[in-house]
Amino acid sequence: MSGRIDLNADMGEGYGRWSIGNDAALLTHITSANIACGMHAGDPDVMAQTMAAALEQGVNLGAHPGFPDIQGFGRRRMTLSETSLRNMIRYQLGAAAAMARAAGGRLRHFKLHGALSNMASEDATLARICYETALDFDPDLVILILPLTAMEEVMQSLGGSWAGEIFADRAYNEDATLVDRSLPGAIIHDAGVAAANMASMVREQAIICASGKRLPCRIDTICVHGDTPESLEIAGAVRARLEGEDYSVCPL
Amino acid sequence: MSGRIDLNADMGEGYGRWSIGNDAALLTHITSANIACGMHAGDPDVMAQTMAAALEQGVNLGAHPGFPDIQGFGRRRMTLSETSLRNMIRYQLGAAAAMARAAGGRLRHFKLHGALSNMASEDATLARICYETALDFDPDLVILILPLTAMEEVMQSLGGSWAGEIFADRAYNEDATLVDRSLPGAIIHDAGVAAANMASMVREQAIICASGKRLPCRIDTICVHGDTPESLEIAGAVRARLEGEDYSVCPL
Amino acid sequence: MSGRIDLNADMGEGYGRWSIGNDAALLTHITSANIACGMHAGDPDVMAQTMAAALEQGVNLGAHPGFPDIQGFGRRRMTLSETSLRNMIRYQLGAAAAMARAAGGRLRHFKLHGALSNMASEDATLARICYETALDFDPDLVILILPLTAMEEVMQSLGGSWAGEIFADRAYNEDATLVDRSLPGAIIHDAGVAAANMASMVREQAIICASGKRLPCRIDTICVHGDTPESLEIAGAVRARLEGEDYSVCPL
Amino acid sequence: MSGRIDLNADMGEGYGRWSIGNDAALLTHITSANIACGMHAGDPDVMAQTMAAALEQGVNLGAHPGFPDIQGFGRRRMTLSETSLRNMIRYQLGAAAAMARAAGGRLRHFKLHGALSNMASEDATLARICYETALDFDPDLVILILPLTAMEEVMQSLGGSWAGEIFADRAYNEDATLVDRSLPGAIIHDAGVAAANMASMVREQAIICASGKRLPCRIDTICVHGDTPESLEIAGAVRARLEGEDYSVCPL
Repeated sequence: MSGRIDLNADMGEGYGRWSIGNDAALLTHITSANIACGMHAGDPDVMAQTMAAALEQGVNLGAHPGFPDIQGFGRRRMTLSETSLRNMIRYQLGAAAAMARAAGGRLRHFKLHGALSNMASEDATLARICYETALDFDPDLVILILPLTAMEEVMQSLGGSWAGEIFADRAYNEDATLVDRSLPGAIIHDAGVAAANMASMVREQAIICASGKRLPCRIDTICVHGDTPESLEIAGAVRARLEGEDYSVCPL
Repeated sequence: MSGRIDLNADMGEGYGRWSIGNDAALLTHITSANIACGMHAGDPDVMAQTMAAALEQGVNLGAHPGFPDIQGFGRRRMTLSETSLRNMIRYQLGAAAAMARAAGGRLRHFKLHGALSNMASEDATLARICYETALDFDPDLVILILPLTAMEEVMQSLGGSWAGEIFADRAYNEDATLVDRSLPGAIIHDAGVAAANMASMVREQAIICASGKRLPCRIDTICVHGDTPESLEIAGAVRARLEGEDYSVCPL
Repeated sequence: MSGRIDLNADMGEGYGRWSIGNDAALLTHITSANIACGMHAGDPDVMAQTMAAALEQGVNLGAHPGFPDIQGFGRRRMTLSETSLRNMIRYQLGAAAAMARAAGGRLRHFKLHGALSNMASEDATLARICYETALDFDPDLVILILPLTAMEEVMQSLGGSWAGEIFADRAYNEDATLVDRSLPGAIIHDAGVAAANMASMVREQAIICASGKRLPCRIDTICVHGDTPESLEIAGAVRARLEGEDYSVCPL
Repeated sequence: MSGRIDLNADMGEGYGRWSIGNDAALLTHITSANIACGMHAGDPDVMAQTMAAALEQGVNLGAHPGFPDIQGFGRRRMTLSETSLRNMIRYQLGAAAAMARAAGGRLRHFKLHGALSNMASEDATLARICYETALDFDPDLVILILPLTAMEEVMQSLGGSWAGEIFADRAYNEDATLVDRSLPGAIIHDAGVAAANMASMVREQAIICASGKRLPCRIDTICVHGDTPESLEIAGAVRARLEGEDYSVCPL
């Protein structure tokens, strides 16, 4: 066995009558589902359905909280006080834990969503507030972090369990950030290329930048998407490739 | 000792910058606080502050979930499917339990808010959905019910702990419903009258209607309010009167 | 020329990142677009994009207000006071008119959405409140009504312009209501059948019930949908059939 | 006559069951009411009531749009695209204009709220987007700006009508910004002091900083508040003082 790797995806990102992506198809590829918790997406009904479907496929559940902004899908930066941040995250964690328990499971991991994630990757103070709150709620949660960012720095010092996450379909800059979506080559469309990239990064335990530069770091989980046929194909190809290289694709 | 009686009040009914009532003053009179859970009022910050203040005064915490309708304060009737009702209540319970735990306490009781409460008092199916969900979440929760309504009928058959609740400042019809607010005499404004009424009802274990008719029932808790100086005065007078008659005013 | 007929569709029913249906495809078939106004769907960005696209295709704009319930998509019945109803509709009309003007058009018609429409078809008082508000806002608006319901009764007495609307893909009961979606045959899936039905109903100016019974009424517009490939096919077939029978398919 | 001065206040800042401040009392002092437009406060019912009350007192109506953030009262900074900003402001303007018309009035002025105002005072691009949208909606609107900020710079170049606004109860820094609320002396509590300050600033047409420094600028309107007894007293004192100095206190 080459080692273990987790595949995660953001799921349950619908709201009311609306849905995004093909959660059912994605569940056949992944091992960890990041569940939207109701503030940027994921009303209680969507959460319940998504969690039940994930558990049926043996996929682990995690909380994926974001800013309280349904219209903006949690992608608009907001300035919240430290206290408000703590309360907002705790509220979402409590709600998600209750929904998970009713579905017959429990929360295993924690990943920030959207603008909140972007901000936490740049701002250690913000990241610490979020992660302390999560670990105070449940010290067994595994925190998903972007390697070599403020997120990792905080988890190094906080001392809880964490997992380094890379993206299957995105190109990396030399500072470990993602190439801006508006730039050419930012998004990887070819499933074979994505799969080969992921296998290399996991094997080398390094982010391989668009430039070819290696950034050694801990890589425990790969984020895949399901909102396009292409992204689903990438998810399948990444899993097949890693299994082909004798990795155990399993939850964190 | 004449017996025990609980005084409860709806609290934390603010949202964002807005608040209602004088929670701080009310906390000196009551023994159980029904905390709004974020869908009709009570954002995470309001919940955290209210719970901390309640625990500081030795007041028990309960969940007070309502319809998802901030603008309507949960007072507009909405038609939700059984599944949506269950999910909506579970979500609020989970969130409230997490906030209570962070404040150093835990949820002890459960009371429906506004239109959801009105509907459950008339509709045993609806009441059963709500109460089953609450007891499935935590079988130790005490369910607050309006005596002689569908709520009581459901709790009689469900078998969990429950408490019969009467209102300190409202007149009753002969069918155990409240006299409509728009009718003369519906609201009791005199603190002495309210206190005497409550003492009689608790002693006789009967709702005493505006007509004088007695409706025997179990009475465990009295709901008081804090949104006017008058209602605060009533809360104080009710407590003083019951203590004067040697009741132990204490949580459920 | 056989006469005139309008084809309308509910559009702009997305919110934030979410969308429903294929508005672009639908716009090639219809002549009137009912634009969600922000309270049940259709944030300002969605409204702006949808209106611009409609005007580009020469499609008329109308307001399609619903209950303030994003999570429920305006499909959950809510009890609002008369004053609140008036204010809620006026607010949405004003917002929609401003967005229409900025897009280079103006509102031509008015159609109630979801639960609000269902309630208005049963309750003349409610329908009158809504339609009076619309005509007070702009007396030139054409009110879309369901023939032979309380809606028609109200417009007969109010005296403004109105248009009778039938549905291309739904079977009718003998009381002019739609066969409940849960019953067999309620939804018409065959584009040829739908097109033939519509041609007959428009020609005869009568709702033809599932039973074959004719309910004579004024029919000015046909509602089509765009949320499935099938519904788009129906929209195209209905238009082709009516044009083939020499109707002028044009806005109200 | 010494000249003219307008007194403005933010009003209708309630939502659903909640209210802030004493709008009724404030209306006896001011000449222009800035009406919250539903996204950060001010649901359609609150808008209707507030506008009716203002018109009854002969007070002019203006639109006071803010970020879509009820929980944050529009006080949390959000990053919106230019297009979203334009649409969001236009939507609120259209809604407010319809409500004003129904109340028997019309919108006369435009003032940004909360975090949106703070951001526009620092960022000319943002201010231009907002003001262009307002003037495109209605070129007769008077734009309220903070003198010597990016807001003034934009209005100087845009060319529409604008009014310079100062605050009755706040101390100023030497760069024309307000002293941070958390610093001593930031808030002026004494009605006499506030009134004397305002009279001096209006007479001199200059912001007089806490340091005593004069910043010459155009001053057309004074913002007063009504959320505390003290602030109401200040509003009354400012008006009385200006009238005593023979100013005509009247709308813009």
